[in-house]
Amino acid sequence: MPGAESMIEELRSGVLARDRRALAKSITLLESQHPDHQAKARELLDSLLPHAGRSLRIGVTGNPGAGKSTLIERFGLALIARGHRVAVLAIDPSSSLHGGSILGDKTRMEQLSVHPAAFIRPSPSGGSLGGVASRTREAMLLCEAAGFDVLIVETMGVGQSEGVVASMTDVFVLLHLPNSGDELQAMKKGVLELADFVLVNKSDLDRVAAERAERQIADTLHFLQPVEPAWRPEVYTISALTGDGIDKLWSRILVYRETLQSTGKWDKKRRNQALTWMWQIVDEALHARFHSNAAVQAQLASIAEHVSNGAISAHVAATRLLTLFDSD
Amino acid sequence: MPGAESMIEELRSGVLARDRRALAKSITLLESQHPDHQAKARELLDSLLPHAGRSLRIGVTGNPGAGKSTLIERFGLALIARGHRVAVLAIDPSSSLHGGSILGDKTRMEQLSVHPAAFIRPSPSGGSLGGVASRTREAMLLCEAAGFDVLIVETMGVGQSEGVVASMTDVFVLLHLPNSGDELQAMKKGVLELADFVLVNKSDLDRVAAERAERQIADTLHFLQPVEPAWRPEVYTISALTGDGIDKLWSRILVYRETLQSTGKWDKKRRNQALTWMWQIVDEALHARFHSNAAVQAQLASIAEHVSNGAISAHVAATRLLTLFDSD
Repeated sequence: MPGAESMIEELRSGVLARDRRALAKSITLLESQHPDHQAKARELLDSLLPHAGRSLRIGVTGNPGAGKSTLIERFGLALIARGHRVAVLAIDPSSSLHGGSILGDKTRMEQLSVHPAAFIRPSPSGGSLGGVASRTREAMLLCEAAGFDVLIVETMGVGQSEGVVASMTDVFVLLHLPNSGDELQAMKKGVLELADFVLVNKSDLDRVAAERAERQIADTLHFLQPVEPAWRPEVYTISALTGDGIDKLWSRILVYRETLQSTGKWDKKRRNQALTWMWQIVDEALHARFHSNAAVQAQLASIAEHVSNGAISAHVAATRLLTLFDSD
Repeated sequence: MPGAESMIEELRSGVLARDRRALAKSITLLESQHPDHQAKARELLDSLLPHAGRSLRIGVTGNPGAGKSTLIERFGLALIARGHRVAVLAIDPSSSLHGGSILGDKTRMEQLSVHPAAFIRPSPSGGSLGGVASRTREAMLLCEAAGFDVLIVETMGVGQSEGVVASMTDVFVLLHLPNSGDELQAMKKGVLELADFVLVNKSDLDRVAAERAERQIADTLHFLQPVEPAWRPEVYTISALTGDGIDKLWSRILVYRETLQSTGKWDKKRRNQALTWMWQIVDEALHARFHSNAAVQAQLASIAEHVSNGAISAHVAATRLLTLFDSD
């Protein structure tokens, strides 16, 4: 294909030169479903990999209305003021195929989105959580190659993306409103146990309620086994609106990093994340091959029907399918 | 192999004749890691499948000390008094290789364990949760073929087996102690959202505390989206020790069944469970083949090391491994 080499080289040098347009284009390439684009994206990513991995990766979650955008805007601007370069990525498996949230993202982080030291990218649209997560992981690496040294990965919507975001970040921040319904939702979904930091937001509106929530969450956290034995999750009140508590968050994240680095757990966590990811890709590929195999496809509906109505066991069905797969 | 046919036939007719010894032996065959035993077990299971599937499958969970054994003993005896035959299976992925809990199970359900209309089987020992769950699912089918019309699958220990037990049963019961630490633990693990019934146990000790807990849990359940839209989870106080509330549990389980059956959701749930299980077996088999493939094995350690230290991306590593697998 003429021009393919030069296109990749152009994007590569653009990303390394911290050109936001080249970065945006590269991520678009990554997100394309076109096999040809995917091959190019893979090549580009590989060539940039030596320049990736050197950021602090922060996951942020919280129910809609908890104030995630306001927090990220404030936090991002504060980090930029300290000399950092901040990229914000989002994960929303429910987002529509046509990515209608682009404008939304620009609007909801008004100052950050136009700042030259920031880069905001909405969730890859459509597809399975696994697919969306995979593309976000790779976008993360591209942002790192483009010199962004703080990455914020935000969960959008409500769902199971919290675990996925925690599995691709170094530190996981849960944003809370000072009311127990919110707390219960977080617990229900097993999100609270993923959190390294819990922030009770909107303390400017009702400091008493925020402090009460802080104590309740602290009590709750006390019951839970921390994810990382070296770190007991911390809870603070903040006001994303006034900026109160934002500096503390950053200083505590740095302490968190230092604590984990001093025991070698920081690197270990990243290594395990990469290996888990590798196996996920392998398993998904194996499953996809199997599922699209002609011999399997030809009989899948009828075998599934027999399993459904109890005529054959799941094991017999699985064995038959595997035999068909092998014979093809 | 001489005698293999006749052995399977003997076990088969024994199970169908409701011979507990034959049932126990058949389950032992299922649990054997020996490939030859596994083939026989598979054959046996297949021949019994037409006789399986006709029980009510109840999952029971709760923290250690919540009173699961006492509840199951009471509940089981009450069902037997109504003419049912009750089998109790346990899932404990952490149980030792040598299944030290057999004696424990007999002891902790003293009357039920010796009753001719009951059958108690401890957790298959050792192995992954997937493996333990798979053997328990199959043991369930054998118990059904042996004429047990109520199956109770109990989670042992504390862990992630709750989801697995919920995925193989028709109704899921969570046993609680009247204290909030217990409640928080259940919520943390996402167990509360699996429950169709929540029982606050030991109401004989402190009725006021039990009723307070009942109200708290009812409030909490109110916040949660029910698993099954046709059924809003119910909470009661019971005393497994005095038997208070045991009859109500059974009558409400029957209402639950009727409610789901009348909308076709009962069968649909079972069909989905069987299909999910089939795919799990396929995916595990594909993963195991891949992992034990000679070409993959030869390079896995070095590729994993490169992923770990960030030299290559998870995607490149996965692609390399898949290529090795294909070339073998």
